Amino acid sequence: MKIAIAQLNPTIGNLSGNSKKIQTVAEKAAQEKVRILLTPELSLCGYPPRDLLLNPNFVNSMSEELDKLATQLPPELIVLIGMVTVNPEAHLQGKKSLFNSIACLENGEVKQIYHKRLLPTYDVFDEDRYFEAGGQSNYFNIDNNIRIGLSICEDIWNDELFWGQRNYEINPVEDLAKLKVDLIVNLSASPYSLHKQKLREKMLSHAATNYQIPIIYTNQIGGNDDLVFDGNSIAFNRDGDVVCRAKSCAEDLVILNFNEEKKDLEKASINPLPSCEEEEIWNALVLGVKDYTRKCGFTKVILGLSGGIDSSLVAAIAAEAMGADHVLGVLMPSPYSSEHSITDAVKLVENLGIKSQKLPIGKAMKSYDITLESLFAGTEFGVAEENIQSRIRGNLLMAISNKFNYLLLSTGNKSEMAVGYCTLYGDMNGGLSVIADVPKTKVFSLCRWLNRHQEVIPENVITKPPSAELKPGQKDEDSLPAYEILDDILDRFIHQHQSVAQIVEAGYDQEVVEKIKKLVIRSEFKRRQAAPGLKITDRAFGTGWRMPIASRW
Amino acid sequence: MKIAIAQLNPTIGNLSGNSKKIQTVAEKAAQEKVRILLTPELSLCGYPPRDLLLNPNFVNSMSEELDKLATQLPPELIVLIGMVTVNPEAHLQGKKSLFNSIACLENGEVKQIYHKRLLPTYDVFDEDRYFEAGGQSNYFNIDNNIRIGLSICEDIWNDELFWGQRNYEINPVEDLAKLKVDLIVNLSASPYSLHKQKLREKMLSHAATNYQIPIIYTNQIGGNDDLVFDGNSIAFNRDGDVVCRAKSCAEDLVILNFNEEKKDLEKASINPLPSCEEEEIWNALVLGVKDYTRKCGFTKVILGLSGGIDSSLVAAIAAEAMGADHVLGVLMPSPYSSEHSITDAVKLVENLGIKSQKLPIGKAMKSYDITLESLFAGTEFGVAEENIQSRIRGNLLMAISNKFNYLLLSTGNKSEMAVGYCTLYGDMNGGLSVIADVPKTKVFSLCRWLNRHQEVIPENVITKPPSAELKPGQKDEDSLPAYEILDDILDRFIHQHQSVAQIVEAGYDQEVVEKIKKLVIRSEFKRRQAAPGLKITDRAFGTGWRMPIASRW
Repeated sequence: MKIAIAQLNPTIGNLSGNSKKIQTVAEKAAQEKVRILLTPELSLCGYPPRDLLLNPNFVNSMSEELDKLATQLPPELIVLIGMVTVNPEAHLQGKKSLFNSIACLENGEVKQIYHKRLLPTYDVFDEDRYFEAGGQSNYFNIDNNIRIGLSICEDIWNDELFWGQRNYEINPVEDLAKLKVDLIVNLSASPYSLHKQKLREKMLSHAATNYQIPIIYTNQIGGNDDLVFDGNSIAFNRDGDVVCRAKSCAEDLVILNFNEEKKDLEKASINPLPSCEEEEIWNALVLGVKDYTRKCGFTKVILGLSGGIDSSLVAAIAAEAMGADHVLGVLMPSPYSSEHSITDAVKLVENLGIKSQKLPIGKAMKSYDITLESLFAGTEFGVAEENIQSRIRGNLLMAISNKFNYLLLSTGNKSEMAVGYCTLYGDMNGGLSVIADVPKTKVFSLCRWLNRHQEVIPENVITKPPSAELKPGQKDEDSLPAYEILDDILDRFIHQHQSVAQIVEAGYDQEVVEKIKKLVIRSEFKRRQAAPGLKITDRAFGTGWRMPIASRW
Repeated sequence: MKIAIAQLNPTIGNLSGNSKKIQTVAEKAAQEKVRILLTPELSLCGYPPRDLLLNPNFVNSMSEELDKLATQLPPELIVLIGMVTVNPEAHLQGKKSLFNSIACLENGEVKQIYHKRLLPTYDVFDEDRYFEAGGQSNYFNIDNNIRIGLSICEDIWNDELFWGQRNYEINPVEDLAKLKVDLIVNLSASPYSLHKQKLREKMLSHAATNYQIPIIYTNQIGGNDDLVFDGNSIAFNRDGDVVCRAKSCAEDLVILNFNEEKKDLEKASINPLPSCEEEEIWNALVLGVKDYTRKCGFTKVILGLSGGIDSSLVAAIAAEAMGADHVLGVLMPSPYSSEHSITDAVKLVENLGIKSQKLPIGKAMKSYDITLESLFAGTEFGVAEENIQSRIRGNLLMAISNKFNYLLLSTGNKSEMAVGYCTLYGDMNGGLSVIADVPKTKVFSLCRWLNRHQEVIPENVITKPPSAELKPGQKDEDSLPAYEILDDILDRFIHQHQSVAQIVEAGYDQEVVEKIKKLVIRSEFKRRQAAPGLKITDRAFGTGWRMPIASRW
């Protein structure tokens, strides 16, 4: 029996477009005599639909779209589609009004609806906001008495034996095993984060081996605002061996054979995993830029090029994502800009083959000086004057963006966003913040990796000391500790929730640690107004970071 | 038996400061021979603490602070304190790791801990993200066999008889009634929205009457980022009559007498409700500005004054909140500014007695024109040029803010925020967006109300047609329908989730409705980067508005 994984890239809310995608892939699968076609979690509306779900018209449209789709699919194919359904008894029983469901379509009809049992409500996930948890194990029997167990994303993430603890009371995989299913399929929309695929595979292999049941995991791909879904759909036989792996960060259709005698999956094509951490991150960021731009209706991107390493890396990502001739880099030197800021940026533009413009900001700076002259008389040059420069650049970039319909990319890294070493309404401007979740030390390693075959990022960009160049002779390390130190302290604060005392105990200077902590807390107001930033870690400053601003701790 | 309501204004995360507040009020209550002192939900850490709760050090500190506080309180007083506690069995049972709790303190000890049973997870509330629901009814018996039932905020909001439906499976109030409690107390942190107090009172009166049990509701007051807590703590006797009402939008300590023979509350002081909708909104906005500014450590605010009605209203709110001499209004005329934009703003400054500065932006505009001359050659004047002006003003305001430590207030209204009739990184700049949840038509009615005794907002500001003045002769109504129409259409989209067809059926032009819908959806990227806006409706563009950007519906 052939089973196919449709690793799709839906656009959130685009019901007819997503439906069309499912139809196209179903026709291909039918030609290959596939019996069951798997699509990702909420494949009909895209994941996460967020507050679109609060609109009953949206939910009704989804149901209508499903009914229409049922009649258009090849009748002999069973298609599992992720969608939202209404909980009819919600207000009688005091439950949430929707379910996160799978619709099983066959012979032009919706045969059955199944509900997700474990609802993630942490980090970027808000499923308790919308959904009621399904109360039953989900499975169906088909030809030759094969029993297929169904699960949706989080349903497979609560194996106490694997994790050493429970996150939910029930374990749907265990429940399916007790029902003696022959195969477990999982429809997921699992966002990318660093090393997550290794974890998924370890966990799924463990489950397959432990219960002696083959498992097929179907993931969504594509960028949806801050989230990048990396695909990497995968299947395991009952010995826990990988039998197939779909592409990383691209749509894919993978056909598997389920041997009905052995009741096991047979080996199929196995795409390799990225060869290193840098390649993995690179792929995710490229996809994130490509999809955010496309799904927002843009074809071109613009960014400021300072000759520094952050904007250089973002330019390289943008060139890969959009094609070099759809990227415009703008050089905006000031009287404080070094000679190399221009020469390095020009070299980068040549290396990447992108377009460029040079717009010196000296005249605009002068106009602000004159306008503010009497008001600022007698004060020292400081942060106000530094920020004016950054905001002039931000204004110029937005003007070009508005005039010629470019999407502006913001180029700040995670270390800067953490301590507020960035200008709100200045270099933070942009529709998408590409490396907002990449710490500065990882920015360096990404650039070195990019240069592994030939120079992409000019060597001097990587080796010169980082500087914002907002006053003469300025260096980042005048205001901040070295990035190796800063990034480790930040990791301890942000990811490990360590206290100042704990970090000092690890060997850092108390004064430095206290300063960093203060900066992180004080910069919350900037992060609240930041553009969506592509998430690559398990704790990003985005939709999953919900800190109060007017607070004191 | 005397029972006191401490209507407190905590600062989020400021454990020692909030603890001190409780101690001070407890000492006052003890002097008055109070037996039980009630404080708001999470009074020790402030509500909502949001992701501070993910830090185990924060949760531990709270517990330490409570133990310390227990020894410092008057021993004969029972004090009910809202705090977060750890769920010790979370990882064994697959439950959330914290509870939203009440600690009952007496005689220098923590006598008992009670847990909230209903956890709101909708709109701005994310309680399922952090908390496990308590499984038991909460009560204690004291002197003369009086039984006190305890509840926390949402616990009282699920009366099927009142609402005509259930939102949760259980009704904690009903459970307490079955346990024959003599009094129900509720510790709340219930944020303000328009007409909410009337709803609270109707609901609580209904419960008191229905179960024949007196109820005391203790609310938090104060502004915490986008949320304003209005206080208005209230108590009902068993006939459902109001027996006391604490102040609106101010801290308060109210002492009630519980007649132990009659097992009922006696009448005490009843503060009046605001006399109209406008007064209610005004009080909330003033408190929101005052507290955000203070809790962020600022003493002065700045805003741009265009001579228009939005900035005029915000200036009036700021003057009330901060004192007129802590408000700086900046006039930034351009060559497109009308004569009256200056004269009206000057009149406003005089009426309010605030400080002002005039910084013409013509020179800065010229510098951008020159910088962009060759790039923009042959293009028409359009949105790009309009936005440059707004962003120059935003840059000037931020420069003054940075230089002299003013908090910048953003002045856009909800109608503009909805359709994107505002400039990102321009007039949207600010730490707090004061009237972001006030529709334009309500901006007008607030100004008229403000002028009820004498002119505060210059009459011409109210009567002239609104204009952004970013090009010659521009009027809002050239791009948008009249605000009465716009606001009603927006209300139908945003609050009532109506479809285009439904709105057209209500009598609006299809083309207009479709245009508005498109504008609302397309402006999501602006709202995502907006400053926190004070919430005054049940559907604000803030932490409770979670829409995808790169989507299509």
